[in-house]
Amino acid sequence: MSDFDLIVRGGTLATASETFAADIGVRNGCIAALGTNLGTAVRVIDAEGLFVLPGGVDAHCHVEQESSTRIWTADDFYSGSVSAAFGGTTTFLPFAAQHRGQSLRDVVKDAQERCGPKAVIDYAFHLIISDPTAQILGQELPALIQDGYTSFKVYMTYDQLKIDDRQILDVLCVARDYGATTMIHAENNDVIGWISERLLDRGYGAPKYHAVSHPRIAESEATSRAIQLARLVDSKLLIVHVSAPEAAEAILAARNMGLKIYGETCPQYLFLTAEDLDRDGMEGAKFCCSPPPRDAAGQEAIWRGLKNDTFQVFSSDHAPYRMDETGKLKHGAGATFKQIANGVPGLELRLALLFSEGVGKGRLTLNEFVALTAANPAKIYGLHPRKGSLAVGADADLALWDPKWQRTVTYDMLHDNAGYTPYEGMTITGWPRFVISRGRVVVEDEALQVERGSGSYLQRKPEIVADGLREPELDPARNFGAGLL
Amino acid sequence: MSDFDLIVRGGTLATASETFAADIGVRNGCIAALGTNLGTAVRVIDAEGLFVLPGGVDAHCHVEQESSTRIWTADDFYSGSVSAAFGGTTTFLPFAAQHRGQSLRDVVKDAQERCGPKAVIDYAFHLIISDPTAQILGQELPALIQDGYTSFKVYMTYDQLKIDDRQILDVLCVARDYGATTMIHAENNDVIGWISERLLDRGYGAPKYHAVSHPRIAESEATSRAIQLARLVDSKLLIVHVSAPEAAEAILAARNMGLKIYGETCPQYLFLTAEDLDRDGMEGAKFCCSPPPRDAAGQEAIWRGLKNDTFQVFSSDHAPYRMDETGKLKHGAGATFKQIANGVPGLELRLALLFSEGVGKGRLTLNEFVALTAANPAKIYGLHPRKGSLAVGADADLALWDPKWQRTVTYDMLHDNAGYTPYEGMTITGWPRFVISRGRVVVEDEALQVERGSGSYLQRKPEIVADGLREPELDPARNFGAGLL
Amino acid sequence: MSDFDLIVRGGTLATASETFAADIGVRNGCIAALGTNLGTAVRVIDAEGLFVLPGGVDAHCHVEQESSTRIWTADDFYSGSVSAAFGGTTTFLPFAAQHRGQSLRDVVKDAQERCGPKAVIDYAFHLIISDPTAQILGQELPALIQDGYTSFKVYMTYDQLKIDDRQILDVLCVARDYGATTMIHAENNDVIGWISERLLDRGYGAPKYHAVSHPRIAESEATSRAIQLARLVDSKLLIVHVSAPEAAEAILAARNMGLKIYGETCPQYLFLTAEDLDRDGMEGAKFCCSPPPRDAAGQEAIWRGLKNDTFQVFSSDHAPYRMDETGKLKHGAGATFKQIANGVPGLELRLALLFSEGVGKGRLTLNEFVALTAANPAKIYGLHPRKGSLAVGADADLALWDPKWQRTVTYDMLHDNAGYTPYEGMTITGWPRFVISRGRVVVEDEALQVERGSGSYLQRKPEIVADGLREPELDPARNFGAGLL
Amino acid sequence: MSDFDLIVRGGTLATASETFAADIGVRNGCIAALGTNLGTAVRVIDAEGLFVLPGGVDAHCHVEQESSTRIWTADDFYSGSVSAAFGGTTTFLPFAAQHRGQSLRDVVKDAQERCGPKAVIDYAFHLIISDPTAQILGQELPALIQDGYTSFKVYMTYDQLKIDDRQILDVLCVARDYGATTMIHAENNDVIGWISERLLDRGYGAPKYHAVSHPRIAESEATSRAIQLARLVDSKLLIVHVSAPEAAEAILAARNMGLKIYGETCPQYLFLTAEDLDRDGMEGAKFCCSPPPRDAAGQEAIWRGLKNDTFQVFSSDHAPYRMDETGKLKHGAGATFKQIANGVPGLELRLALLFSEGVGKGRLTLNEFVALTAANPAKIYGLHPRKGSLAVGADADLALWDPKWQRTVTYDMLHDNAGYTPYEGMTITGWPRFVISRGRVVVEDEALQVERGSGSYLQRKPEIVADGLREPELDPARNFGAGLL
Repeated sequence: MSDFDLIVRGGTLATASETFAADIGVRNGCIAALGTNLGTAVRVIDAEGLFVLPGGVDAHCHVEQESSTRIWTADDFYSGSVSAAFGGTTTFLPFAAQHRGQSLRDVVKDAQERCGPKAVIDYAFHLIISDPTAQILGQELPALIQDGYTSFKVYMTYDQLKIDDRQILDVLCVARDYGATTMIHAENNDVIGWISERLLDRGYGAPKYHAVSHPRIAESEATSRAIQLARLVDSKLLIVHVSAPEAAEAILAARNMGLKIYGETCPQYLFLTAEDLDRDGMEGAKFCCSPPPRDAAGQEAIWRGLKNDTFQVFSSDHAPYRMDETGKLKHGAGATFKQIANGVPGLELRLALLFSEGVGKGRLTLNEFVALTAANPAKIYGLHPRKGSLAVGADADLALWDPKWQRTVTYDMLHDNAGYTPYEGMTITGWPRFVISRGRVVVEDEALQVERGSGSYLQRKPEIVADGLREPELDPARNFGAGLL
Repeated sequence: MSDFDLIVRGGTLATASETFAADIGVRNGCIAALGTNLGTAVRVIDAEGLFVLPGGVDAHCHVEQESSTRIWTADDFYSGSVSAAFGGTTTFLPFAAQHRGQSLRDVVKDAQERCGPKAVIDYAFHLIISDPTAQILGQELPALIQDGYTSFKVYMTYDQLKIDDRQILDVLCVARDYGATTMIHAENNDVIGWISERLLDRGYGAPKYHAVSHPRIAESEATSRAIQLARLVDSKLLIVHVSAPEAAEAILAARNMGLKIYGETCPQYLFLTAEDLDRDGMEGAKFCCSPPPRDAAGQEAIWRGLKNDTFQVFSSDHAPYRMDETGKLKHGAGATFKQIANGVPGLELRLALLFSEGVGKGRLTLNEFVALTAANPAKIYGLHPRKGSLAVGADADLALWDPKWQRTVTYDMLHDNAGYTPYEGMTITGWPRFVISRGRVVVEDEALQVERGSGSYLQRKPEIVADGLREPELDPARNFGAGLL
Repeated sequence: MSDFDLIVRGGTLATASETFAADIGVRNGCIAALGTNLGTAVRVIDAEGLFVLPGGVDAHCHVEQESSTRIWTADDFYSGSVSAAFGGTTTFLPFAAQHRGQSLRDVVKDAQERCGPKAVIDYAFHLIISDPTAQILGQELPALIQDGYTSFKVYMTYDQLKIDDRQILDVLCVARDYGATTMIHAENNDVIGWISERLLDRGYGAPKYHAVSHPRIAESEATSRAIQLARLVDSKLLIVHVSAPEAAEAILAARNMGLKIYGETCPQYLFLTAEDLDRDGMEGAKFCCSPPPRDAAGQEAIWRGLKNDTFQVFSSDHAPYRMDETGKLKHGAGATFKQIANGVPGLELRLALLFSEGVGKGRLTLNEFVALTAANPAKIYGLHPRKGSLAVGADADLALWDPKWQRTVTYDMLHDNAGYTPYEGMTITGWPRFVISRGRVVVEDEALQVERGSGSYLQRKPEIVADGLREPELDPARNFGAGLL
Repeated sequence: MSDFDLIVRGGTLATASETFAADIGVRNGCIAALGTNLGTAVRVIDAEGLFVLPGGVDAHCHVEQESSTRIWTADDFYSGSVSAAFGGTTTFLPFAAQHRGQSLRDVVKDAQERCGPKAVIDYAFHLIISDPTAQILGQELPALIQDGYTSFKVYMTYDQLKIDDRQILDVLCVARDYGATTMIHAENNDVIGWISERLLDRGYGAPKYHAVSHPRIAESEATSRAIQLARLVDSKLLIVHVSAPEAAEAILAARNMGLKIYGETCPQYLFLTAEDLDRDGMEGAKFCCSPPPRDAAGQEAIWRGLKNDTFQVFSSDHAPYRMDETGKLKHGAGATFKQIANGVPGLELRLALLFSEGVGKGRLTLNEFVALTAANPAKIYGLHPRKGSLAVGADADLALWDPKWQRTVTYDMLHDNAGYTPYEGMTITGWPRFVISRGRVVVEDEALQVERGSGSYLQRKPEIVADGLREPELDPARNFGAGLL
C-alpha cells in the first residue's frame, strides 16, 4: 500500500509567509506531510519548475443569483465553479441573497439545494441581508451564525437592497455579539440617485454616464460612514470592492488606528478605467459595474493599497451578465445606464491577472499574492488553515502555477457563461497547470477532470466573542471620557 | 448746527484687522468720520479706557420660534433683542422656520410681522427648510433669495426637521445657483435614534444620557458627509455649532483643501461639559443641547479651532427654554432625555464669555475676537461692511467695552426669559458700558434706552454667481479626470 | 489755513478686513481722518475709480548687500527703493548681513549709514546672523533687539552662512526671550551639496541642474526640522520663500496645531517653473534662485497656500544680479550652476503680479491681497498699524491702484538695475497710479517725485514677553507628560 | 536506522501565517518533514500542550562590544548567546563596530575571531559604520557586502559615532547599489547636546534628566529626516529602537506611501517609562538608554505600532552594563546622566515579555508574535527561510513554548552578566521549555545542554539589485516632474 494517495514532487511551495522547496504528501484529501523523500504514492505529480500554491479562495462572487431587478447571473453553480477551478480557485463564497420579505433560512436552504449538485469546488455562502426585521435580527440571524453562516453582506445603495444606518448598526451588533463578519457595499445611494436623475433628465443615458453617476465621493463618503458605524459599536467590518483612492485612504486610516476594518479590491479596479465605459455603442455596457472603474491614478492607488495593507482581500466580484436580453441588454440597445445590469465577470482570470501584473512585474511578492488571494480571505471568513494554507492537516487544495506560461486572453479560452471578458486581448504570463481540490485533480491538461457536484460545502464556526466587548456604547461610566462621546 | 449727531471720543478702536486710537463721528445713524479733533456733536461719549468695537452680530439664535415639538422659546423678539443688546450684540439673525407643509413665503411673512414691532436691534432672518418640495426649490426659494433671504439652515437630525442627502444636494444647488449660504446641523439621525432607543429600552432616561445618545461620532460622521455633499456640487456650506474635535478636524481639512466650507461654534462648547448634564435630579436638563457639550479635551480642541481658522463664527445658538412645563419640563420631572427641549440660553453672555476667557486670558487677540463675533458673520451672511466693521458709511453699531469691569454672573443680571443661565457663578472680566445701534444709544448705565420695535430689518443681496460654476458634476468631459470621479 | 495737507478723495479703501468708500485726510504725514466731506486741503487727489490701499510692505529683499561670495546686488538703496516705490511698495526691510567674524553692531551701523542718504521710502533692517558666537548671543543681539532690530534671518544652507541646529536653537531662544522674530531659509545643505557634487562629477553643470540639485525634499526636510526646533523652545519662526508643496504642508500642519509658525512665499513660485532654467545657453541663469521654482502643480499648491493661511506674507525676495561679470556671470559663460549668483529681481512687480493674477482672476479677495502684501508683514515685523493699515494715526502710506490699467511687462518700464526681468512679456492688469509715503507723493504720472534719501528709518519695539514661557524644555516637572518628552 | 535524528511530536506549530498541529522531523540539523506519524527518530520530544515556534531572531543586540567611550558590554559572546538561548532566541545579530579610523575588514575579522569560539547559537554581524571614508565606501563596504555582511547601522547621534546627512546619503547609496540594508539610530544630536548642556549648566545631572535631554522631538525629527534621505535615493532603511509616537507616525506614513522604510521597537518602550529613571539615587541609571522610555500614552502608541505594521521587528537592543565601575557607574555615584553608559539588558526576556503581554493579553496573535520576533527580522536581514520559519529545509531552530508556565522575574533566574534586570518583579506567563538550534537541544530542564562555541556563523547574500533603480536622483529627464523636484 502506498504511503500517500498523491505526492506533488519537486515544486516550490509558497504560503503567505514562506517560500521553500518541498514535496507534499496527500492522504484522504488532506495535506499529510511536507518534506523530501516522502515515500510512495498512488499518483505522483511532477511539479518541477512550478509554484505550488494554496488554491485560490474567491470571497466575492455572484453565481446563480437573481438580482433585485430579477435578472439571473449568466453562471450557475456549475459553470461558475468550473470557471473558478480553471483559474486556480478551489474555494468560492457566493451569496445566498435575501430579497425583501424573504426568510433568511429559506434563502440559505434554496442556495444549498441548488449549489450542492453542481459545484465542482468547495464552497460556503455569504448571506445578503436586505430586510433586517426584528425577527431576522433576533432569531434567524443568530441561529444561522451558530449554524456556520458567519458572514453577510449589506448594501448602502440600490433601492431594493439598501438598508439605512440604523439597520447597519443593528446588523453590526448581531455580527459582533455572535461572532460573524459583516461585508458592506459602500456607496451613497442618495448621491447616485440624485446625479442619475439629473443626467437622465438631460438625456445623458449612455453607458459612460454610469461612471459619472457614481462619483468617487459617493464611495468615499459611504466608506467613511460605514467605518464610523463599525467603530461606534466595535464590530468587524470589511469594505468590499473598493475603487476610489479616497475610500482606500479612509480604510487605511482606520486600520492605522487599530480598528477592525478590512478592505477588498478586485481586478476591474486595477485593469479597467472609466474610459472603457465610453466605447462605441453599447460596448461600454460590458464594463458597467458598481463602483465603476476609475482612472490611471486610481489604479496606482489601488496597487499601492494591495502593498500597504489597505486591502487584505483580492476578490473577483464576479457578476456575469450576457450582452443580450437575458442580461445587460434586457432593456434593449437603447437602454440607459440605469437599466444596464451591473457587474463584470472575473472568476477565472482573477488569479492570473494579479500574478502576471503583480508578481510578474515586481509589484507584489509571491507570498503577498498568496495572502491576498487565498490565505487572508480564508482567515477573515473562518476557513483557515483548512483553506488558504499549506499546513499539515489542511485540505489538499493546490494550484500548481507555471510562472512562464504566457497566453493572450480570449473569451474562447474561458469557461464561464458571460459571453465576453473585459480583459480580451491582454497577455498574461503565469497560469495554473494543475488545480487540485481535496487531493482530487480538478483541472489538468486544460481539461476538467471531475464530476458535477463533487465540491463540498464548508461548515464554518463563529468567532469566539469576548463578553466584555458587548455594547460599549451604552455604558456611560465607560464612555464619559472613553473616546466615543 | 453740530458737525455730528454723536462723537465717541478717546476710545481704542478695534476691527477684525486693526487696533488704533481715534474718535468716531456719527451722522444719520452711520459712521461719518474716524479721526481726531472731529468737531462738534449733539452728544459726546467719553470712551477713555474703553475698547470701541463693532457691535456684535449673533448669527445663530432661536427667538420667538416654535420647535418642531410645538414648544415656543421663552424669548420673544422683544426680550431676545433686549438681552442681545445688553450683551453688546447689535445685530441678530433668528430663524424663520418652516414646519413641513408650510409655504416659506408665509413663514417669512409671519416672522417679519412678529419681529418688526418688538426688536430693539437690527435683524435679518435665516430660513429653516424642512420640506424642500419641488415648488419650494424651484420657485419660492429662488424668489426669496432674490428678495434678500440669502441664508438658510437645514437639519440632518430631528425627525420633524431632517432632510436626506438627496434633499441636501437639492438645497445646496439652489444656494449655489442663486447666491445664498447654506447652514447645516450635522448629526447622524440614525445613530442618535438607535442609541436612544437602546438607552430607553434599558431604562437609561436621565438627562445625562442625552450626551450618551449624541456621541462625537454622530457629529463627525454627519459633518464629513455634509462637507462631501457640498464639495460634490461646489456650494458654500457652514457647519453650525460644532462641538466634537473630530468634526472640527474635518472642517479644517476641507478648508485646507480650499473648499468653501465654514465652521461655527458656541459658548457651550468652551465652558460646559457632558458632566454638567449629570447634575442632581433634573438640573442636568438645563444643559441639554444638541450636539451636547463634550469634555475638557474637547474644549481645548474648540479653542484651538477658534485660533486656527476652523471656526469663522462664534454664535450663541441661543435656544431658551424655561425649567417648567412651558419649556424643558413640559413632560414633567420624570421625563426622559428624549422629552427635554434641546437648547441653552446664551445671547447675552456670548461676547462677555469669549472676551473674558479669550482676549483676557491671551488665547485670542482683540482683532480675532471682533472677527469671530462680528466681522466674519457679517461677511458670510451678506451684511458687511454695514455691520461688523468700523468703516466709514457703516451703521454706527458700537459696543464700548470696559475691559476691566469684573462681575460674577447671576441670572438676575440678565434680560432674557430663560429663567436660568448655564454660566451661573462664573466671574467675567470685560463688559460693554455702552451699546449703540445706528447711532442710538441702546444700553447705558445698565439700562435700556430705546423703544420696543426700534430695530430695523436688514435687507441683504445674493452673492454674485459665476455662471461657469454651475453643475460641474454633470459635465463628463470636465469630470473624467477632474477629481470628482 | 487748510484742514489737511492732503485729501485723497472718492476712492474705494481696502484694508486687510474692510472695503468701503471714503476720503482720507492727511496731516503731518499721517492719516488724520477717514470720512466724507472732510473739508479743505493743500492738495486734493481725485481717486475716483481707484482702490486706495495701504502701501506695500516688502519684508524680504536683498538690496545693496554683498553676498557671501562677494558679489554685490545690482541695486543700491536708491535704485532699490525707487523700484519698490514705482511698484506700490512704501516700506521695505532689506538685510543687514553679518559675514562670519563681523560684529552685528558694525553691520547695522554700516547698513544705516549707506541706506539713510539713499532710500526714498521707509525702511527697517532684518539682521542676518551667520556667526552666533557667545558674545553675539549674550550681548550684541539682546541689545540690538532692545534698540529695535527685532527680526533676523538665519540660513540652513550655503556654506558661508549656514548655522547648525544647535545654533538655531540658540538664536530661537534669544528671539523668544527678548521678543524678536526669527526668519529661516530652510533647505538641507548636505542634500544640496551631495547632489551638486555628483552632478558636477558627471559634467552636469548647466543652469537647469540648479533645480535638480535643490530637490523638494531638501526644502521640506529642512522646513520640518526648523519647525520642530521652534516647537521645542516655543519660539516664533517664519519660513521664508517657500516653494515646495511638502514644505507648505508642514507649515500648515504646524499652524493647525497652534504653533507660532509663519510662512512666506514669493512671485517666482507662482509664475516661474524649473523649466525656465532650461532655456538656451545661459539664459536659464536668469531664473536661478534658491529654492528654485518648481512645476505647475507646485504653483497651484502655492496659490492654495496663499488662500488657506499657510502663507501670511508675500514678499519679493528681490536679489538682483546682472547677467554680466558683476553678477550672475562672474565666472563667465561656461560657469556651472554652482557658480551662478542665486536670486531674481521682483521688488517692483511683486504687487502688480499678485494683484493681476490673484485679485483679477478671482483667486484672492482684495482684502486678502492687502493682508498678504502689507498688513501681515507689518504685523509680524512690528510695524503695525503704523504701516500696512489705513488706521487713523498711521503713516499716510498709500498706493492708489487702477484696477483697469493694463500693461505688458518689459524691463524698460522698470526702475531696478538688474538688467532683466523674469516676467518679461507678461500682461498685467492693475497698477498704482499714485504712490504716497507719509503724505508725500512719491510716484505720480509714472515719474519719481521725491528726493534721494527722503525715506525714514522705522524704529521698532520688541514684543512683550511673558516670563512664564521661558525655557519650558528645562522644567522636568512640566515636561514629564507635557507633550515634548 | 531511524528515519530522523529528532522528532518533535504533538505540538501546535505556528509560523508568521499559520497555526496547526503537526510533528516535525529533523535530519542533519534541518527540518526534514512536517506531518503526522513521521516514523522513528533517535530522540522524540513530546510537545503536547506546547507551541512549537521558530526560534527567535534577535536582530539588535550589543554583545562583547566596546562603546565609543571605551566601556565594554558586560556580556561576551558566550554569556550573551547563552542568555539569548534561555530566552528562546536561536539566532542573534550583534554588531561589528567600527571606531573612527578603523578598517571595517579588521573590525569584522576581530568580531569573528572573538565570537566563533564562544557563541552557543547561530549568529551574523551587522556592521557599525562611523567613518565612511572614500576608501570604506568605494572598496571595503562593497566587498564586505559581497562577502555576506549585508546590513549595517549608522548613527545620527553620539559625538563619536554620528555621521552627517551627506554621509548617510553615501551609505544609503552603497546599500542600494550592492543590495544591503541600512539601519539607523535616529535622534537629533544637536538637540540632545543643546539641552544637555543647559541642564548640566543648571546642575540638573540626575539620571532622570537623561530623558529630559532626549525629547520626543529629537527622535521624531531625526526619523523624519532619515526617511526623507532614504526616499531621495530610493534605498531601504530600517529605523531602530523607536520609542516616540511621532517617530512611529512618520514611519507608518512612509510605509503607507509605499517607501522601503521599516521600523523596529524593543521591550523597554512597552514596559518602562521615563519615570523609572526617577528612582532613588543612581537606581534610575539602570533604565538609561537612548532613546529613553517615554510615558504610558507612548507605550500604547508602540503597542499599536506592533499591530498596524509600523514595526516589523521586535528586538532587544540588549546593551548590558553593570551598575559598577566597569559599566554604568564608571564615573562614580555622582556621575551626571551624560556619563552613564546607555543601554538596558533584554536579550533573555524579549520573547517572554512580548508573549505574555502581547499574545497572552490578546494584543497580538501568535502568528504576529512569530512574525515580529523571528520571521520578519530573518526576512529583512537575509536569513529567511533558513531562520524564522518552519519550512522544510530550514534550520531546525525551535522554541517549544509553554503558554501556561508562569514565573516572576528575578535577576537570579537570568543568564546574562548585567547584574540586574529592568523587569525585576514582573510576572510573565509563557516561557520556552525546550530551545533547539539546528536540531541540537540547547536548553532543556532549565539547563544549558551544549558546548561553548557550538553556534555557527550565518553566511548571507546581498539582495538582487535591479539596475534600473540606481541613481534616479541624477537623471533630470526623469526628475523634472517625477516627484522629487
